[in-house]
Amino acid sequence: MEKTPIKEEQITRRQFLTTVGKVGGSAALFSVMGTLGLLSPETMKAADYTPPSGWDLTSTNRNGKKVIILGGGIAGLTAAYELGNAGYQCTILEARARVGGRAWSVRRGTAVAEVGGTKQVARFDNGMYFNAGPMRIPQFHVTLDYARKFGVAIEPFNNVNESGYYYNENVGELSGVKIPKRQAKADVRGYVAEMLAKAVNQKALDLPLTTEEKAKLVAYLKAEGDLSADLFYKGSERAGYTEEPGGKFDAGVRRDPFSLKAIINSGFGQFFSSEYSYDQQMMMFHPVGGMDMIAKAFEKRVGDKIEFHAEVQEIKQSSEGVRILYKDLNTGASKEVTGDFCICTIPLPVLKDIRADFSAEMSTAIAKIAYASAGKIGLQFKRRFWEEDEQIYGGSTLTNMDIASIYYPPTDYFAKKGLLLGYYAFGGNADKLGKMTPAQREDYALSQGAKIHPQYHKEFEASFSVDWKRIKYNLGGWASYTSDDRKNYYPTLCKPDGRIYLAGEHISYITAWQAGAIESARKVVTEIHERVMKE
Amino acid sequence: MEKTPIKEEQITRRQFLTTVGKVGGSAALFSVMGTLGLLSPETMKAADYTPPSGWDLTSTNRNGKKVIILGGGIAGLTAAYELGNAGYQCTILEARARVGGRAWSVRRGTAVAEVGGTKQVARFDNGMYFNAGPMRIPQFHVTLDYARKFGVAIEPFNNVNESGYYYNENVGELSGVKIPKRQAKADVRGYVAEMLAKAVNQKALDLPLTTEEKAKLVAYLKAEGDLSADLFYKGSERAGYTEEPGGKFDAGVRRDPFSLKAIINSGFGQFFSSEYSYDQQMMMFHPVGGMDMIAKAFEKRVGDKIEFHAEVQEIKQSSEGVRILYKDLNTGASKEVTGDFCICTIPLPVLKDIRADFSAEMSTAIAKIAYASAGKIGLQFKRRFWEEDEQIYGGSTLTNMDIASIYYPPTDYFAKKGLLLGYYAFGGNADKLGKMTPAQREDYALSQGAKIHPQYHKEFEASFSVDWKRIKYNLGGWASYTSDDRKNYYPTLCKPDGRIYLAGEHISYITAWQAGAIESARKVVTEIHERVMKE
Repeated sequence: MEKTPIKEEQITRRQFLTTVGKVGGSAALFSVMGTLGLLSPETMKAADYTPPSGWDLTSTNRNGKKVIILGGGIAGLTAAYELGNAGYQCTILEARARVGGRAWSVRRGTAVAEVGGTKQVARFDNGMYFNAGPMRIPQFHVTLDYARKFGVAIEPFNNVNESGYYYNENVGELSGVKIPKRQAKADVRGYVAEMLAKAVNQKALDLPLTTEEKAKLVAYLKAEGDLSADLFYKGSERAGYTEEPGGKFDAGVRRDPFSLKAIINSGFGQFFSSEYSYDQQMMMFHPVGGMDMIAKAFEKRVGDKIEFHAEVQEIKQSSEGVRILYKDLNTGASKEVTGDFCICTIPLPVLKDIRADFSAEMSTAIAKIAYASAGKIGLQFKRRFWEEDEQIYGGSTLTNMDIASIYYPPTDYFAKKGLLLGYYAFGGNADKLGKMTPAQREDYALSQGAKIHPQYHKEFEASFSVDWKRIKYNLGGWASYTSDDRKNYYPTLCKPDGRIYLAGEHISYITAWQAGAIESARKVVTEIHERVMKE
Repeated sequence: MEKTPIKEEQITRRQFLTTVGKVGGSAALFSVMGTLGLLSPETMKAADYTPPSGWDLTSTNRNGKKVIILGGGIAGLTAAYELGNAGYQCTILEARARVGGRAWSVRRGTAVAEVGGTKQVARFDNGMYFNAGPMRIPQFHVTLDYARKFGVAIEPFNNVNESGYYYNENVGELSGVKIPKRQAKADVRGYVAEMLAKAVNQKALDLPLTTEEKAKLVAYLKAEGDLSADLFYKGSERAGYTEEPGGKFDAGVRRDPFSLKAIINSGFGQFFSSEYSYDQQMMMFHPVGGMDMIAKAFEKRVGDKIEFHAEVQEIKQSSEGVRILYKDLNTGASKEVTGDFCICTIPLPVLKDIRADFSAEMSTAIAKIAYASAGKIGLQFKRRFWEEDEQIYGGSTLTNMDIASIYYPPTDYFAKKGLLLGYYAFGGNADKLGKMTPAQREDYALSQGAKIHPQYHKEFEASFSVDWKRIKYNLGGWASYTSDDRKNYYPTLCKPDGRIYLAGEHISYITAWQAGAIESARKVVTEIHERVMKE
């Protein structure tokens, strides 16, 4: 099929436009829409075809305005891309040799030395990768709009897979038993539906429902729990089979349900809701070939504006402009660049140790925000035993062991080899694993994982692990705001400090997501443009 | 990445082996395993390395035995493939010009005249298709083993998508309102968890649980329903937002929950469990490019054994062998072919009208089994508005209108055009739609669908519809057994009738699935082989 990418100017950018409209009213809306090429057929129609007015691309005073962007992650790239479309000059200073920041796909040859650690080099086979940072994208995130616009191919990220396991230790009868998710869900839903259906039928509850509505509720519960006619949960085909149904006389033998006590004590039910939150619901997606395909697509469009190996040393500003001092890591030379404005996307734990003439209020806010601990290990296996032996194609296994989860690769099904996430750990688990050397992490991931997949040791080939708290230029997974932080410090972080604007996932209500970086960058672009228009 | 297909003889075919083992004991097991090349490292290990014995490929009496296979659908293809591996001769008679039977992908140029209807020709763009028959494969079905073996690429089939809608008419307050699935689920789960949590806390239920276990149950319900600390459901981010959270100060505005009454009367809760059954749970898959890729992969391996345009007229047998009379539809000539055995995969509603010297018992059984009504319509649109405007990537919308469902394409995301299923209807709905002409079906699908997607009429380009009850050589969706049928007639259908063996999805406990066709064909191959070995 002809895959004509939609023309960039035809994209509907609902969230961006809403934002601009709120900030500056409809005049600003159309200015910015015109500037950024956002006047799609749909938005024109919605706006009753009022054209942009009052200025045009060549005569406005934004010409010659220059913005210095600190950081070539998704926020910095978005800012450069959108500012460029609007006719601004900009320069991105990026300390690394690559774009993307935490949107980082680890492949053969990827090398990193964690802070205080030794150098790891990924020895995976060609074509194998894992996403050390963001690995999934909800359907409704603006990130997909850029992927579409840039022609980045996507495929589903299997965030829900009933064939994955739950495995808990020290939980009573079901300790140390791996249970397919489908089985735990069928039993818990069954028992819970049974309890409530009976309570409704026995009028044990004072419900504001008519008799007919109660009957509908019971009918729902019967379907929800796969209950018998007399409203008992007696097991369900939903839990799977001990002998599969098949041809001729193989009618299948259903799994027996676990007891109510066993399944409640297992703690498995607590895992279910991890799939329910808005940003974890199916369908989810990821770029074919690695999350960094999106950052690379941005780079194709703004690459000429990026200075790599440029480590920011000091951020200075006056009423006239900004001046950034940086070290050229190739030569060791000190350099500087000046501009009218600065968009700073440097993560706060890094930024707080960079000299800058921020206001005292801003400096305090930057220093106060804690970042999440998060770590992953990629394990390459010479055989996709999870597919071949266990019929698990993508998705995850969850456990109360320190490894917390195993994620099976949602790509390259049927390939000979495979690379899974041996853990994706947060908080205390991530701290514990992060303290280990890469070799120790590998041992730990293999020995805990082998309790679930005995094939682990026989099939293992290579690992690479990342502890985000120890990755230079990041020093943390993502901004982890308390509600007090949102009240006390977040408003300061959101306001321009003189000529300096912060952007990044930390300047959003969708922290930890690339969409937060994009949305915040768009807001900053809009604010700078409005300021320029007023000046 | 190097995608070395696993060697055919290395495939673990757990279900097949289990079957053979049951039928013939371990000697038969190893005979058949050896014959069919099933001795993989894993199965060898499981069997403690006992080698196949007693005969070898060149000396056995199966040489020269010939099997006539009626029908080139998945069952017939599987039989030919496995018999060929084991050294048997076989011929497939197929009335159509293509393999696959109901595993049929409709593309540009596909033509069909339904029984009593006029000819439809698909006018879709090149590269667009829909699967008129089976369209999804559970992870654990043997179908995927063949896809892997044959190097047929697969991709996820998005059977669960919280961004799809529920839309019901005549259900009270929420009539005619399209609600994202996530919203209905959040509300129903929330209210139900609230009711039960309170009942448990108020000791309104007589539960066989300790105080500690009850506390665990309540903790689960709190997580399951996203309840407040005092165990009320007050809405949830899981339902989505009326204003999305985003950058800077866009904290997001959550959707208000519907009332308990409204959501119960909506009937949406009854839809949830359609995703729970064993064979509908995520993850599901389909071949890239059309379900018929699997049939075509079989054809590559057994194509020389297929006689197309061969319409079976009569099935005859004696104690010596079988004789099949058929019409060559190219020339109109009557022809015949003889063999030692016959595997008949012809769907029962077709078979019952073919002259055959079946036993009276078999003839009765064949005539007694009802087939399901099922119909689909593919609608090509010039723009993927479901992705661009509504951020729905694959998955379905469910409704109590006659169209029953809309399925968004789980492939080619971001492409310019798209082809969705405007309905996938069963039973009474399918009968109603089936009675219409293709043009009427198109009108009907568009007008009902437009209630959910107002973009329909503007963006529509072309349709093609299928009513399986009216498709020659099928005359129905799949075997629809009552439990009495399984008792009274199914055993007869499973037993060989002289030298004739039935195979197909109808000779299985996984009817309607390609896996049923495959599993039944494998059983028949095993049975014929064992009979030959004994003779």
